[in-house]
Amino acid sequence: MNSLKSFFSPRGVVLIGASQDTAKLGYAVAHNLVNCGYQGAVHFVNPKGGSLFGRSIYSRVCEIPDPVDLAIILLPASIVPNNLKECGERGIPAAIISSGGFRETGAEGAILEAECLKIARQYGLRLIGPNCVGLIDTHQPLNTTFLPHTNLPPGEIAFISQSGAICDIAIDWALSQGFGLSWLVSLGNQVDVSESEVLPPVAADPYTRVLVLYLEGVQEGRQFIEKAQQVSRQKPVLVLKVGKFSAGQRAAVSHTGALAGQETAYEAAFRKAGVIRADTTEELFDWARALAWCPPIQGSSIAILTNAGGLGVIAADAVESNRLKLAELTGETRSGLRAVLPPAASTNNPVDMLGSATPEQYATCLKLLLEDPGVNALLVIIPPPPVKTAQEIAQAIIPVLENRQKPVVVALIGDQSVQAAVKPFHLARIPEYRYPEKAASALAALVKYARFQTGTISPADLFKDIHRDRVQELLNQYSPENKDSGDWLPQNAIEEILTAYKIPFPPAYLAKSAKEAVEFANQLGLDQSPWGMVLKIVSPEILHKSDIGGVLLNLKDAQSVEKGFDQIIQNVLSAHPHAAIQGVLVQPVIPPGQEVIMGAVRDAQFGPLVMFGSGGVEVEGLKDVAFALAPLVPQETEYLLENTWAGRKLQGYRNLPPADRSAVVEVLSRLSQLVWDFPAISEIEINPLRVLKEGMGVFALDVRLKVQNKV
Amino acid sequence: MNSLKSFFSPRGVVLIGASQDTAKLGYAVAHNLVNCGYQGAVHFVNPKGGSLFGRSIYSRVCEIPDPVDLAIILLPASIVPNNLKECGERGIPAAIISSGGFRETGAEGAILEAECLKIARQYGLRLIGPNCVGLIDTHQPLNTTFLPHTNLPPGEIAFISQSGAICDIAIDWALSQGFGLSWLVSLGNQVDVSESEVLPPVAADPYTRVLVLYLEGVQEGRQFIEKAQQVSRQKPVLVLKVGKFSAGQRAAVSHTGALAGQETAYEAAFRKAGVIRADTTEELFDWARALAWCPPIQGSSIAILTNAGGLGVIAADAVESNRLKLAELTGETRSGLRAVLPPAASTNNPVDMLGSATPEQYATCLKLLLEDPGVNALLVIIPPPPVKTAQEIAQAIIPVLENRQKPVVVALIGDQSVQAAVKPFHLARIPEYRYPEKAASALAALVKYARFQTGTISPADLFKDIHRDRVQELLNQYSPENKDSGDWLPQNAIEEILTAYKIPFPPAYLAKSAKEAVEFANQLGLDQSPWGMVLKIVSPEILHKSDIGGVLLNLKDAQSVEKGFDQIIQNVLSAHPHAAIQGVLVQPVIPPGQEVIMGAVRDAQFGPLVMFGSGGVEVEGLKDVAFALAPLVPQETEYLLENTWAGRKLQGYRNLPPADRSAVVEVLSRLSQLVWDFPAISEIEINPLRVLKEGMGVFALDVRLKVQNKV
Repeated sequence: MNSLKSFFSPRGVVLIGASQDTAKLGYAVAHNLVNCGYQGAVHFVNPKGGSLFGRSIYSRVCEIPDPVDLAIILLPASIVPNNLKECGERGIPAAIISSGGFRETGAEGAILEAECLKIARQYGLRLIGPNCVGLIDTHQPLNTTFLPHTNLPPGEIAFISQSGAICDIAIDWALSQGFGLSWLVSLGNQVDVSESEVLPPVAADPYTRVLVLYLEGVQEGRQFIEKAQQVSRQKPVLVLKVGKFSAGQRAAVSHTGALAGQETAYEAAFRKAGVIRADTTEELFDWARALAWCPPIQGSSIAILTNAGGLGVIAADAVESNRLKLAELTGETRSGLRAVLPPAASTNNPVDMLGSATPEQYATCLKLLLEDPGVNALLVIIPPPPVKTAQEIAQAIIPVLENRQKPVVVALIGDQSVQAAVKPFHLARIPEYRYPEKAASALAALVKYARFQTGTISPADLFKDIHRDRVQELLNQYSPENKDSGDWLPQNAIEEILTAYKIPFPPAYLAKSAKEAVEFANQLGLDQSPWGMVLKIVSPEILHKSDIGGVLLNLKDAQSVEKGFDQIIQNVLSAHPHAAIQGVLVQPVIPPGQEVIMGAVRDAQFGPLVMFGSGGVEVEGLKDVAFALAPLVPQETEYLLENTWAGRKLQGYRNLPPADRSAVVEVLSRLSQLVWDFPAISEIEINPLRVLKEGMGVFALDVRLKVQNKV
Repeated sequence: MNSLKSFFSPRGVVLIGASQDTAKLGYAVAHNLVNCGYQGAVHFVNPKGGSLFGRSIYSRVCEIPDPVDLAIILLPASIVPNNLKECGERGIPAAIISSGGFRETGAEGAILEAECLKIARQYGLRLIGPNCVGLIDTHQPLNTTFLPHTNLPPGEIAFISQSGAICDIAIDWALSQGFGLSWLVSLGNQVDVSESEVLPPVAADPYTRVLVLYLEGVQEGRQFIEKAQQVSRQKPVLVLKVGKFSAGQRAAVSHTGALAGQETAYEAAFRKAGVIRADTTEELFDWARALAWCPPIQGSSIAILTNAGGLGVIAADAVESNRLKLAELTGETRSGLRAVLPPAASTNNPVDMLGSATPEQYATCLKLLLEDPGVNALLVIIPPPPVKTAQEIAQAIIPVLENRQKPVVVALIGDQSVQAAVKPFHLARIPEYRYPEKAASALAALVKYARFQTGTISPADLFKDIHRDRVQELLNQYSPENKDSGDWLPQNAIEEILTAYKIPFPPAYLAKSAKEAVEFANQLGLDQSPWGMVLKIVSPEILHKSDIGGVLLNLKDAQSVEKGFDQIIQNVLSAHPHAAIQGVLVQPVIPPGQEVIMGAVRDAQFGPLVMFGSGGVEVEGLKDVAFALAPLVPQETEYLLENTWAGRKLQGYRNLPPADRSAVVEVLSRLSQLVWDFPAISEIEINPLRVLKEGMGVFALDVRLKVQNKV
């Protein structure tokens, strides 16, 4: 497949379906192509011929002179395939099918769409669309769309959308919120070029500082993660992913499967890729402006500057509820503030200059706060003027912010009476918001991005002390051949797999005699164990072992084990004289400890999704679980532990002693590696994993593992 | 104390501190008073005399002719008390002290403020302020403020604020968001009149349909609940309560105390009072417009009408995330829609008319959806015009909405290209928002209000089978006299209190002999109990009873109990030959079951705050708890159970059988009544309450109770 270069910097463009009728989209696109300032050749095709904007209209694609790298097709769906074929024959490497009437309208359209893809593949031609708005590049410039806005200002935000309607709206927002778009890319039905594929070329654009995505889904999960991760190390990627609630849950067998919905996988994928997810449409561009215009933030300590106490309190609430903190001001800063403010002013953060604050006081205080080393960013509140207008304040503070090294956001509170200050802030590339809560949430987006940028994205060194081959053998052996659903593996196979990946589970030996039982007990560390051994009868006929004396606990020395063996046999035989006895299982008693659940389930889109949290039987009720995508990187493992009570309490809590947290981390990583290494494992769950005291390790007490169909 | 009538409908007003200097606030207030259209007498006082707006300025208050019901004082703080005294002597019943310079500036100001209150009390004069903006009534009309806006439109929303700065901003919002204010009340330092007291007179105003409060705190918690509850049965009360994060937690002794923060109490108080709490400043008036302009909502099923699929999905997400549901359309509605829409349109909810939708199609579809009995409210999406302008759509649909019986909100998405439609919607009193998420959250506010209005607000019949006197005796006996903190009651006193309020705990008798032990065991139902009895040694010297054989479990017949008694004595004496033995405790074994925590702690502002949730030792870690204020009404009890996993699982879960939920509800109600009846109980906690199978009751296994200082 050739690259997407022809879409992003074509030397010449042809519009197939150009129209002289001003009411038609074929006219609107022609108008935009000719008037947008594009420097390359622009050609029109329409079988009717004629001329348009001083250019003659060719009747066929083959007649167009070189160079022509990009075709824009705006024709009834039914004749698109033939025209696409002509593009292929003409050697055009890229086409945008703007027309609708394809998959989105039903089966017939879907057939047409498939035909287009087939033709494109045949000629090595790349496709954007169908059913899309097209592309705008404000810097090159190039505009292949029919959108009526011709005054879209150049800017730093690239917008990539799977919905056409939102493109038009985004331009509207750009105009009113004072930001410019570098690129607008409407992807439509994505028959060929997907959201993932356009990320790197758009990010490579030097004018683009932030990429904003409107997603209804991703085409290929792992490709999306890979591309987005690569891009978001360099430039922030913001996403609005819609369709949260339409996504169904999986049919539940394991707890992990029951809780791992499609949205959970998306959340985990965005986290892994460093993509910042906005919850609402409004946040998308509120945050994009801050990310485009602010220098990187170095921490999460925020200073608030206000001339009204009440608004300061609202902002302080918003800072805290966005998980930022209020900066502690240095003595120097505070005495500097005291020197310029009236005595009743508050020089604590939030700094309240009182209603009498002058533009000069705003400027001086702002400067002092910017210089405070404990302040990572500033939130400046400007309400309607008790004394001076917002515009006067804007004029006074903008020069102070010219070479700022820290993010500063402004809450211009009110509407008509602060309007005059909006434009100056836009021109100075200072994000302004109408409410303090929004300003604070924009700062939080900066912090989220900074955290991702400084984290690692590759999993820690994978474990070498594992036996992949053995697991592969077992999985081959147990893979279901001709079944609709996967199979749960038998216990002995699971134990072999755990052994191969060094995931500890309680050892056990089947003793056939009292002597053997003592030997095994010794091997299992009888003399070091304060908890002793447990003996259990193994007989297919006996279900409730304890009830008939078939289990003996806490046998602490060789003599007890020896006597215990005989005792159990005797107990069993007296209850079931004809029971077939396979032997007596010798196991160490696993000391008490904390218990957690860990598991993984294969997501159709993103692959193995790992779960961690509070185990037991109430997993779905307590919902104290978190998810991350394998292979886990260290900060994802930490995320799982920090975002669950089960994880947090491993460090000890009240009378609960600290548990072996590092052993949990290790097993989590091993589990992650196992499911990553073997796509055939569709579901695995350890519930519970017993976690002993610090340094004492962990044991998988109950494990289930499902192998999926051969694919 | 006289009523607040003189503030809200004064027959004459005097401004003390009127000024001829146009730069002074004393001029601005005079200007507003004279020009606002107020029909009563307006007088000015200033020792300098002169004239203003064609009126002569009196030099002293005593000179003003009748009638004068309200004084507005705008003077340097230091001379306010003297002038207030003159008001009192003149017989003026009400004064607004607009001046600042009081408590908000420090100790000196606080003394002046206290002096004002003393004078006011002496003359029976009521005070609003000091340090406030004053009042505006747009219908009477009356404007005692110095705010520069003279074009504030009359409307349906009353705004009551503890912050002056927000008043100015609220007017700005009103002007841009197209709503009018009925009343604006700025309360300032609230030396006398509080937020609670103004609620009923403002709500009584026939023009007011919604009350909106900006709160930094409440003066007297229970008064607030009472007034707000009374008002919000008739008209919705919306609140923005700031200072969430400044509120500290209590020093933790019990789990309940550790988790019951001041914010928790506010949340519970708002819930009890039916006050709808906005999380952000923006939501406050977004929701107020919907509550003021929409008919009551009858359910939570929402229909979405859109001409762009992507926006429909965003709106559907927002509907679900606001805990509303998408209405299921009837076959009739769907065939009606099919008749007017192109075949590719979606007649499922969200109804997607496609980009080609005409204003007529909008109108027809809207009508069909309004008529669908399964639709409780509508969210109409109008993006920038692919075909028709938003204004044309507005013109087509507004007539359809004229006599609507169901709430309809509009998401006018975009900015400049939809602006022309904003005003027509405002004039038609149809709430419009710039984002679908906001429109959905406004509908959710309507549902919240409807739910409160249909619920009960008085606790169910209180229990009569209790012994208040006995509890009072015990509390008197144990009340600490001269201590800084309360006392934890001894176990026997707690048991008496539980008995008096019929809160079950495991019965126990102290047997002095084997024979007595058997007698008690029989009284405790030895022969009916499948679990048998437990015997425990009672001796102050023995701490670890089990270790020395001082506890025997599951004794199921008389013989075992008799032998058990002797066995225990023997065990104890062989371990501690000189132990003083008080006897052996005989108790029934409490069967296994679910366990919950319930407790209550006295909040300084709102009184007893009841907690319910998952018990054990990890209460603070799991945080599976919910709070409500005593005395609990049935929907509060349900809230506690439905909002905790501990409560939800009482109905059974997987292999967990249903537990005795109704016994939990009863004990929760009895606990609530106990703490409500006895303010001396500062803290009580049952952890755990063992909940047996359905119909088998509950037992408080461990109870702590703290009595507070005599006050």
